[in-house]
Amino acid sequence: MTRAALIALDWGTTSFRAYLVDSRGATLDRRTAVAGIMQIQGGDFEGTFEREVGPWLERAPDLPVIVSGMITSRQGWVEVPYLPCPAGVHEIARALHKHATARGRTVHFVPGLSLRAPDGMPDVLRGEETQIVGALVDRPSAGLFLLPGTHSKWLRVEGGRIAWFATFMTGELFAVLRQHSILGRLIEGEAHDDAAFQRGARYGLDAGAQSGGLLKRLFSARTLGLMGDIEGTGVSSYLSGLLLGSEVREALGCVSAEARDQGVVLVGGSELVARYAEVLALAGVPAGHAAPDAAARGLFRIAETGGLLE
Amino acid sequence: MTRAALIALDWGTTSFRAYLVDSRGATLDRRTAVAGIMQIQGGDFEGTFEREVGPWLERAPDLPVIVSGMITSRQGWVEVPYLPCPAGVHEIARALHKHATARGRTVHFVPGLSLRAPDGMPDVLRGEETQIVGALVDRPSAGLFLLPGTHSKWLRVEGGRIAWFATFMTGELFAVLRQHSILGRLIEGEAHDDAAFQRGARYGLDAGAQSGGLLKRLFSARTLGLMGDIEGTGVSSYLSGLLLGSEVREALGCVSAEARDQGVVLVGGSELVARYAEVLALAGVPAGHAAPDAAARGLFRIAETGGLLE
Repeated sequence: MTRAALIALDWGTTSFRAYLVDSRGATLDRRTAVAGIMQIQGGDFEGTFEREVGPWLERAPDLPVIVSGMITSRQGWVEVPYLPCPAGVHEIARALHKHATARGRTVHFVPGLSLRAPDGMPDVLRGEETQIVGALVDRPSAGLFLLPGTHSKWLRVEGGRIAWFATFMTGELFAVLRQHSILGRLIEGEAHDDAAFQRGARYGLDAGAQSGGLLKRLFSARTLGLMGDIEGTGVSSYLSGLLLGSEVREALGCVSAEARDQGVVLVGGSELVARYAEVLALAGVPAGHAAPDAAARGLFRIAETGGLLE
Repeated sequence: MTRAALIALDWGTTSFRAYLVDSRGATLDRRTAVAGIMQIQGGDFEGTFEREVGPWLERAPDLPVIVSGMITSRQGWVEVPYLPCPAGVHEIARALHKHATARGRTVHFVPGLSLRAPDGMPDVLRGEETQIVGALVDRPSAGLFLLPGTHSKWLRVEGGRIAWFATFMTGELFAVLRQHSILGRLIEGEAHDDAAFQRGARYGLDAGAQSGGLLKRLFSARTLGLMGDIEGTGVSSYLSGLLLGSEVREALGCVSAEARDQGVVLVGGSELVARYAEVLALAGVPAGHAAPDAAARGLFRIAETGGLLE
C-alpha cells in the first residue's frame, strides 16, 4: 500500500469531509461526518477533529494536516484573515495559517478570499478558493467558474489566479421563500417538474425591463398558481427555475461578452449542478464540468505548493 | 346631525376598517378592529361583520353596505371573480357582487382586478382598486400611483381607468430575510438609521449591470456588516433601503420615460410611505401624496356610481 502523505479536510457550515492522501494526491481513505460548523455542540472543534481523524494520526503522527472551508470563519475553529484577490495557489499557499492544537498537532488553515468589486462593495468566500485550485489542476488557467450552493459563487480565473468573484443568495432565498412566504402556500410537494422549472428559468433569464426584476417576477409564482396556469405540484420547480434563471442573467451581466461566450465550468456533483447546466443551456452558454473531488484535489495542490509534503 | 347614507368596509388580510358615511361622503363615525382575514377564528366573517357594524345597522337597517379588500379572495368571506383591466369606477360599480347574509342583510362586494401583462404574466389585486378610485376623486385622471405594503402595488391610470399594475413582493421579502436568513444574524435592533437606509437605497437604485441584480446585491447587507462598513444597528435599515431602491428601479423600468417624469402619487400614510418618498427623491422622481382615507373615499365613490345611495 502507498504511504499516506497528507490529511486534507474540507470543513464547511453543514459538511465535514476528510481525505487521507498519498504523495501523488491519490485518495487512500475518506470520511464524511455530520460535523459541519452548525452541527457541532458547544464549538468543540478540536474534539471533533480528534474523533474524526485521530485514528489516522495515531498511525502516522507526523502527517501534515491542511483544512479549508467555513471552519476558518468567525463562527469556526480559528478565524483566519481573508486574503485579497487576485490570488492563486501560490498566494494561498504562502498565506497558510499554522495553528497548534491543545494536543500538540499542527494544522494548516487555508485562508478565504476577499474582494472589493468595481462598485466598491466587498465580497468574501471561504472554501471555494480551494475548489477552484482543484478544478484548475487539469484545465486551462482562465475561465468562468460556477459553484452552486446555498450562496452560489461565480468566479473568474485569469492566469491561474482568482481575479473576481461574486456571491448570489439564490439557494437561501429559495429556502426562505418556500418555507416562510405566501409563495410556499400554493406549493404541493417538492417533486421536480421539468416543464415548470424551465418555464420559470426562461422568465428569469428574460432581459425585458417591462417584466421588472426579481421583486416583481417573484409574484408570478403566486399568480400563475392562482390562475391555474401551473399546478400546485409545479410551483416549487417554477420558483426554483425563476431564481436560477435570474441568477444566471445577473451573473452574465457582470462579465464580458467574451467570457460569456467561452462558457462556464460547473464545479460540484449535486442535482443542483444539473439544474444550473439546464439553465445555462437555455441561456445559450456552453457549460463544462470540473472533475469530481475538486476540494480534495485543491487541498493537495495547496499543500504541495506550500511545501507541506517535503 | 347629518343622516348616515352608507356603511363602507375596507377589509384586508390583517386589517378591518369600517366607516359610517353621509350622503356627501363625509365620515360620521369609524371603527377599526383586529379582525383581518388572517385574525378571524374559524372564518366566521358574518359574525365579525355583525359584531362590528351591527349597532349601526340596528339604528338604520336599510343602510347600504359596501365592502372591498382581500375579504373577496378565496380565503375571505365570498370569493368574487376578478374584473379585468382596464377598469375604472364605472366598470367596478357595474361589477359589484351582491351577497345576502344569513341575517338577511345585503352586502355589496367590490371585485378585485386582474391583468395579463405584456409579457403574458398574470397579476392580481384586491382593495387597491378602491384606494385608486378614492385617490382620483380630487386629482387628474391619469398618472402613476404607488401603494406600499407587504406586496407593494404600482398602478398606471389613463382616462380615469386603471390601465396597468404590477405587484412587488418587497415588504414580504424584507420580513422573511430579516427573520429567517443569514442577513438577520448581523442585525442589531430595528431603529431607523437614515444613513444606512440611504446607502442601501442608492445601491438598489444603481442601474450598473456589473453590480448584478437583487440576488447578488442582497449579499452586500452581510459583507458590509462583516467588514465593519456598516454597524449592526444599521443593517436592518440598509436592507430596507436596498429593497425599496431595487423596487423603485424595477418599477420605473416598467413604465415610459414620460410617466416617470410626471412623477408618482403615493397612497397611504404609514412610515413606509415616507421611506418610499425618500427613495423616489434619490431617484429624481417627483412624488405627491394622495389625500388620506383613500379607501373610504373610493368606497363612497363606487357606491355612489353604482346607485347604492339612491
